[in-house]
Amino acid sequence: MESALRTDSSSNNGVGDGGFLAACRERRLWLCSAAERLRCAVVGFAGKLGKIARDDPRRVAHSLKVGLALTLVSVLYYTPLFNGWGETTIWAVITVVMVMEFTVGATLSKGLCRVLGTLAAGLVGVGAHLVADLCGGKGEAILLAVFLFLAASAATFSRFIPEVKERYDYAMAIFILTFSLVTVSSYREDPGDLIELAHERITTILVGVAICLFTTLFVFPIWAGEDLHELAAGNLDSLAEFLEGMGSECFGENSSCENLEGKAFLQVYKSVLNSKAKEDSLITFAKWEPIHGKFRFRHPWNQYQKLGALCRQCTSSMDALASFVITLKKAQCPEANPVLCLKIRATCAAMSLHSAKALRGLSLTVRTMTGPSPINNDVSTATKAASDFRAELSEDVALLQVIHVAIVASLLSDIVIQIEGITESTNSLARLARFKNPAEIRSRSNVVINIEN
Amino acid sequence: MESALRTDSSSNNGVGDGGFLAACRERRLWLCSAAERLRCAVVGFAGKLGKIARDDPRRVAHSLKVGLALTLVSVLYYTPLFNGWGETTIWAVITVVMVMEFTVGATLSKGLCRVLGTLAAGLVGVGAHLVADLCGGKGEAILLAVFLFLAASAATFSRFIPEVKERYDYAMAIFILTFSLVTVSSYREDPGDLIELAHERITTILVGVAICLFTTLFVFPIWAGEDLHELAAGNLDSLAEFLEGMGSECFGENSSCENLEGKAFLQVYKSVLNSKAKEDSLITFAKWEPIHGKFRFRHPWNQYQKLGALCRQCTSSMDALASFVITLKKAQCPEANPVLCLKIRATCAAMSLHSAKALRGLSLTVRTMTGPSPINNDVSTATKAASDFRAELSEDVALLQVIHVAIVASLLSDIVIQIEGITESTNSLARLARFKNPAEIRSRSNVVINIEN
Repeated sequence: MESALRTDSSSNNGVGDGGFLAACRERRLWLCSAAERLRCAVVGFAGKLGKIARDDPRRVAHSLKVGLALTLVSVLYYTPLFNGWGETTIWAVITVVMVMEFTVGATLSKGLCRVLGTLAAGLVGVGAHLVADLCGGKGEAILLAVFLFLAASAATFSRFIPEVKERYDYAMAIFILTFSLVTVSSYREDPGDLIELAHERITTILVGVAICLFTTLFVFPIWAGEDLHELAAGNLDSLAEFLEGMGSECFGENSSCENLEGKAFLQVYKSVLNSKAKEDSLITFAKWEPIHGKFRFRHPWNQYQKLGALCRQCTSSMDALASFVITLKKAQCPEANPVLCLKIRATCAAMSLHSAKALRGLSLTVRTMTGPSPINNDVSTATKAASDFRAELSEDVALLQVIHVAIVASLLSDIVIQIEGITESTNSLARLARFKNPAEIRSRSNVVINIEN
Repeated sequence: MESALRTDSSSNNGVGDGGFLAACRERRLWLCSAAERLRCAVVGFAGKLGKIARDDPRRVAHSLKVGLALTLVSVLYYTPLFNGWGETTIWAVITVVMVMEFTVGATLSKGLCRVLGTLAAGLVGVGAHLVADLCGGKGEAILLAVFLFLAASAATFSRFIPEVKERYDYAMAIFILTFSLVTVSSYREDPGDLIELAHERITTILVGVAICLFTTLFVFPIWAGEDLHELAAGNLDSLAEFLEGMGSECFGENSSCENLEGKAFLQVYKSVLNSKAKEDSLITFAKWEPIHGKFRFRHPWNQYQKLGALCRQCTSSMDALASFVITLKKAQCPEANPVLCLKIRATCAAMSLHSAKALRGLSLTVRTMTGPSPINNDVSTATKAASDFRAELSEDVALLQVIHVAIVASLLSDIVIQIEGITESTNSLARLARFKNPAEIRSRSNVVINIEN
């Protein structure tokens, strides 16, 4: 508003000065507004970067560590001490760029894969060279090409074996790479030069891996195991938050139960549903990590996978409950059986609040790594409330029976509503992707029939 | 059995020949059994490989394609035509190994990232070299190291920006790699040599990328878009299979509804729940792919993400329904209100079978890419059954109200049961990881108190 007023007054001042000055001013204003837009974009981008850094300050540490490791490896090249290394130093640089990962476990596994892959391919490659050498001349080149084709195909296929893919995928890529380089180079080199080349390459890769491990282990180490542990505790907290929200907003004494749709607590469990991929990769990396902090030798990493699967299964029930509660509140039916309803409502409040407390206790157990306290009876209280509710219902057998089939029917009708959504989504895909339209084809043939008639 | 008999008879024959012959025979038997075990292991491994190949024969094609591309690139080195290339050919080999991916989209995106990253880093690197050159001597080395540290840190940090991570992660890795190589080499090379080096490197990388694109596009191409399309249709089929199973096994006329726990149809939706990671990566790659087959320019790839999200939400309700049905059948309550129960059961059968039919229709629509047929009224039939069920219930307001709160309570008590499982899992984690035990600490302090008393 203020800037608009200023613009107006400045153009009023310039009315008598003719078109030239006005044009100058206009251009200046345009430049100002362009500069303002640029400033806004830069500020916005800086804010975004700041948020990424604040969300997880270890990202900044990791970036600086990569810079540090590369500078360290380049020092090897600058110093006269390593002048003899010459061209092969680039392998140390490539190793650092490719092996440095966010967590210690990932860096360790990639470093080990790189060393293993290089060693295996070096041995096989020199063997292939010696065999091909027996043929000599053109035969050698053809035989080497055949070997390369076979080895690369076999190694690529082995990457589809689940066990290899999980642990040695990068080692296989490095095997193919090194084997190609050895066979390709071996055509022009002496066997003696070749072995020296292989030796230099392995040494530089070892130096690169050593620098990576030094930086990743001793400069602000980031452990996959700790991330995994934190993820497990965070998942338990998310589940607790949902139940706390349900307890206070739906079953509380003064809860209105209206406009639940936008509430944050009804969304909080969704992060748990999508945590599987992150969890799996963290478990793979955590297994490579040495003893550190609270994590001893043979820490039961697979147990986190089981816990995560149970948490995700729990979120499925929460999802069904959340969508049911939202639809229920929309229906707005009057209170018809207030005594029973109040009773069940109190049971629900007890179940959700005690379950939430139990989950908070479990999350604290995981976070502090202090064994489960035997005085925490929240789970048994919640279980008792659930079984009491069932026992009470089972007194009225007819009602229980009706409720059971009604629950099944109600869940099914929920599914039907979701399938309506799926149908709409598929139809809009068909429209956007311009699927062939059977109705059009039919109406066209109708037109033909009409004309013929 | 047969081999055991043979072993017995052969040792009976050898009783009189003394210890030596018996030992020989024993060793032979041991060798035989070792050979047998080895044979079994080899056969088992071959069977596993065969299964991997049969599950998706394109895996074999991809492996052979990698072999082909590498052989093609090595031919560049063998032929006298490219003798002038010398050492730089290794860049073409590295490019082929790193860029060749399973699908066309992935190969294209990695190839483009590699070219972009190399070009950008080459330009920035030569600029940094020119600036550092002004200082000369030791100053140059220090300035280059500082530049390297800053550029590597900044580029690594940029990989945490979600948009960069999704599309240009590999380009950033290549930027860091090339920039390091240029700065490290530039200390010892002339500027003229450096530019020639950069030129050679870019040319060889272009040749490598060209060979990859040729192989991936023209030799048995594997499209991420087709995989994504197939995944969407397969998800719809999985949902349909679950509902068909429910319709026939739970609500059918002669269905016994017993021992549902191990049934396959109750597990089939679980693959849909875990399809998110695969779907996301396929969408990213599909966006890079050129027009092919049934997929035109600007195919609505994001629509698949929406459809997938809806399918996964539907599986949450299915999960709740499945676990409820399994618990329900275990409870074995008698039929108390047979008229209403039969009615609801018939409604459930109608809902599940019509929904399943609708889903099969949608999956056919996606598979054949033929627009939705307007005569397919299964969705509306299912929706009508669902709303009829609701209308019928709403006539008896008291019953409806009780059912609503009972459903909420029942879902909550399901959650409570799942939390019991989570508690057990956390406790076994605590036991296996030997968390500190508060009870022990307390009992120890009790002992101290007792002694003091």
